[in-house]
Amino acid sequence: MTVTHIDTQETSAAATAEILSAAAAAHAGWSATPPAGRAAVLDRVADALEEAADRLVPVALEETHLPEARLRGELKRTAFQLRLFGTVLREGGYLDARIDHADPEWPMGAPRPDLRRSLRPIGPVAVFSASNFPFAFSVAGGDTASALAAGNAVVVKAHEGHPRLSGLTGTVVQDALKAAGVDPHLLSVVFGRDAGTAVLADSRIKAAGFTGSIPGGRALQDIANGRPDPIPFYGELGSTNPIFVTRDAAQARAAEIVAGFLESFTLGTGQFCTKPGIMFVPRGTGMVEELRNASLPAVGPMLNGRIEAGFNHVLEALSGIDGVQVLNTAAAGSGAPAPVLLGTGVERLLADPQALEAECFGPAAFVVEYDDESQLVEAAKTFEGQLTATLQAEPASEVQDLVAVLAEKAGRLLWNQWPTGVSVTYAQQHGGPYPATTVPGSTSVGTAAITRFLRPVAFQNFPQHLLPPELREDNPFAAPRLVDGVRLV
Amino acid sequence: MTVTHIDTQETSAAATAEILSAAAAAHAGWSATPPAGRAAVLDRVADALEEAADRLVPVALEETHLPEARLRGELKRTAFQLRLFGTVLREGGYLDARIDHADPEWPMGAPRPDLRRSLRPIGPVAVFSASNFPFAFSVAGGDTASALAAGNAVVVKAHEGHPRLSGLTGTVVQDALKAAGVDPHLLSVVFGRDAGTAVLADSRIKAAGFTGSIPGGRALQDIANGRPDPIPFYGELGSTNPIFVTRDAAQARAAEIVAGFLESFTLGTGQFCTKPGIMFVPRGTGMVEELRNASLPAVGPMLNGRIEAGFNHVLEALSGIDGVQVLNTAAAGSGAPAPVLLGTGVERLLADPQALEAECFGPAAFVVEYDDESQLVEAAKTFEGQLTATLQAEPASEVQDLVAVLAEKAGRLLWNQWPTGVSVTYAQQHGGPYPATTVPGSTSVGTAAITRFLRPVAFQNFPQHLLPPELREDNPFAAPRLVDGVRLV
Repeated sequence: MTVTHIDTQETSAAATAEILSAAAAAHAGWSATPPAGRAAVLDRVADALEEAADRLVPVALEETHLPEARLRGELKRTAFQLRLFGTVLREGGYLDARIDHADPEWPMGAPRPDLRRSLRPIGPVAVFSASNFPFAFSVAGGDTASALAAGNAVVVKAHEGHPRLSGLTGTVVQDALKAAGVDPHLLSVVFGRDAGTAVLADSRIKAAGFTGSIPGGRALQDIANGRPDPIPFYGELGSTNPIFVTRDAAQARAAEIVAGFLESFTLGTGQFCTKPGIMFVPRGTGMVEELRNASLPAVGPMLNGRIEAGFNHVLEALSGIDGVQVLNTAAAGSGAPAPVLLGTGVERLLADPQALEAECFGPAAFVVEYDDESQLVEAAKTFEGQLTATLQAEPASEVQDLVAVLAEKAGRLLWNQWPTGVSVTYAQQHGGPYPATTVPGSTSVGTAAITRFLRPVAFQNFPQHLLPPELREDNPFAAPRLVDGVRLV
Repeated sequence: MTVTHIDTQETSAAATAEILSAAAAAHAGWSATPPAGRAAVLDRVADALEEAADRLVPVALEETHLPEARLRGELKRTAFQLRLFGTVLREGGYLDARIDHADPEWPMGAPRPDLRRSLRPIGPVAVFSASNFPFAFSVAGGDTASALAAGNAVVVKAHEGHPRLSGLTGTVVQDALKAAGVDPHLLSVVFGRDAGTAVLADSRIKAAGFTGSIPGGRALQDIANGRPDPIPFYGELGSTNPIFVTRDAAQARAAEIVAGFLESFTLGTGQFCTKPGIMFVPRGTGMVEELRNASLPAVGPMLNGRIEAGFNHVLEALSGIDGVQVLNTAAAGSGAPAPVLLGTGVERLLADPQALEAECFGPAAFVVEYDDESQLVEAAKTFEGQLTATLQAEPASEVQDLVAVLAEKAGRLLWNQWPTGVSVTYAQQHGGPYPATTVPGSTSVGTAAITRFLRPVAFQNFPQHLLPPELREDNPFAAPRLVDGVRLV
């Protein structure tokens, strides 16, 4: 196989300006393309990515050290995601179309005019891609898919961890767009921090998506907020994803829970935003002993040296906290880190939750022992916003209070499953209160992610021929609508 | 009638802290109250406000100088709005309930777990009330109604323009809450800038709503964004609300358009966020002459001296711009400002749009003459985000390009009606790109306003008894849902 040269040089200021102009021009045509037309194009992009698997995966392997099976699965997920947004576009409910016919009797004290409201593309979108999902949260990943589906042009800032893959993915997508007869500048890739911040600060960019660390995300969020015209910044920053094991669950199936936990916190070398970083286990059930004596799964190498250095740094800080012990560890593999379980008691955690609940990106987790389940509720209250929180419990467990607290803290609650593995579906929620997400009402995975890149416009007393199709009386695309307060599908 | 003493002293730091604690405690119970229960309470609050009209309106009259009929109408609208949110709660579609049953065949490459997602209250909300709607955008106004409906406690920062009315409204609402059997601390009022910023910065507050000026709103937005845990800040800041008159419309009905415009820009002494501040009219149709010779409507006094001083200051700046003339003015009434029409040409506006398109809060507006309708498109492109944009046009007018540009600039487009008067309905949109609104995807009027104060949570593999009612198989409240991608109502 011949790999052509992939340019990954930092994008100059002049080139960035050209890319932004081209994106704005491409946006104009794309945003006016009917949803079904956009769906057909997304299908073509999905096909092209799958067809290019044998060109993309080797570059990804080289740059990320992730296993080939994982990368091929992730590429499949990425293509699936583009097609799923196509079905969302064809169904039309995402438009949230509402029609109020004029009503002289409207009981507000004034006649109601004819008002019709639906969602439209927000404008060109900046996407900052993630290190740990070189396909699914990168150039053609979830943020891009939802922004394109919503009708926007996208400018992606490539992650420095996989620049060549980013460039190649961009080329594959642009070729597919061209072949589908639309402007290839709908998707562009820029390289380098300066280019990324220039894109985010540019007045033509109307929203941004980000997946990454808390400091990196917050810095970009501050740029978005500090613009003369602030724009929505949808960042997914960090999460510790606590697991709460009730006493009866530990008594009923300690071995199963331990096995599930060990697999989940080491999966992908612990480099998932939903990696469980803390598990609360009851004292006196033998569970800690099982965890101490378990043989920890072997893990592969980390994504890159910078991320490995970060892991070692955070792990060192956590291990050095007074009252924290290393509970279990394995030998480091060749070029790979050693998985580590740290241990402490819930009293220690409650004394300094901020330090002990910090995210550690990599194959490490805390085991926190407790005596009484009321301590779980107390501990749950100390967490910052989370992507997920998990209960390992039995049907008769008294967990109502714990569930109530966790629903305030996390975007997804799991029952007897594990948080790693985020299915792309209609009901998925990947986002929670800050710092899990910068906008707590949003999700970056699942079909609801499209809403982030839309904006409502109402038309008052408009003639039919100037309305968007979904707001016309004849409803040509059969969009679900709310008509005079009644939901019609 | 005896008016009891109303305390409007600046709220001390200690009192603010107590109010926040009480709000957080009240939030816990309210957020767990089923939607229909909350609807019944909102109905009681609406009744209480209407019943207290003869106590509230005299205080409003005294503090705002607005006419009694307007104030009584606004109170009616305020009560209507609370009841309308009640119907939203009873219908249940606002929950955006989604159920994905487990699916081993899900084509993503991994089995789909059982996932169920709906929206829940975001947490206690801070509301900063407006000067110009002492009822509808104040203590019991749209932000409060939508935040309470969503299931949140609310802390309102009273506007300094009507402190006694704010205090009295708070008391009426609290008494109604108590009578309805819920915690009266669901709604509290604080006074003074320091108390307002302390509330906004407090970690127990999870979102904020604001209606007011661009500098005031931006300062608060920066506080919300600068918190260790930034929160969504829904601000409605400013808008010029341009009107575009096509040549054929001017030829067909110049007198009617002139009359409508004069009424709209002087309504409420020009103190509406949707006041049309600029009208583009074709040269050579006699329309400017009609505007010059028209007798401008008399207006009432402004809300207060600070706002009148601001009006005079902006008007002076606008009048002083080279190439701007006073087209028409009336004598000032007793204690009331003189309505003013300024005039200029579209060439002048295009040369310095930022200066000429600034919002002027009060009874003044620009008349901008143009030659060719292509200049309307050019001028439309120069506007910042707007709440509204209006076309005065004929069915055969060629305005497709203009509509396309305006849909990118404004949240509500009107056809042959006037932007003042914002009906509270299902399809209303009151919000646009910055600075019209800080969050372009949101509205502060209409039933969609509730979404601002909600947050999604997904439950994975959860037992039925621990799910919110709208996510249970039996769907006890018959909420509309998206089940396995199919919309069921």
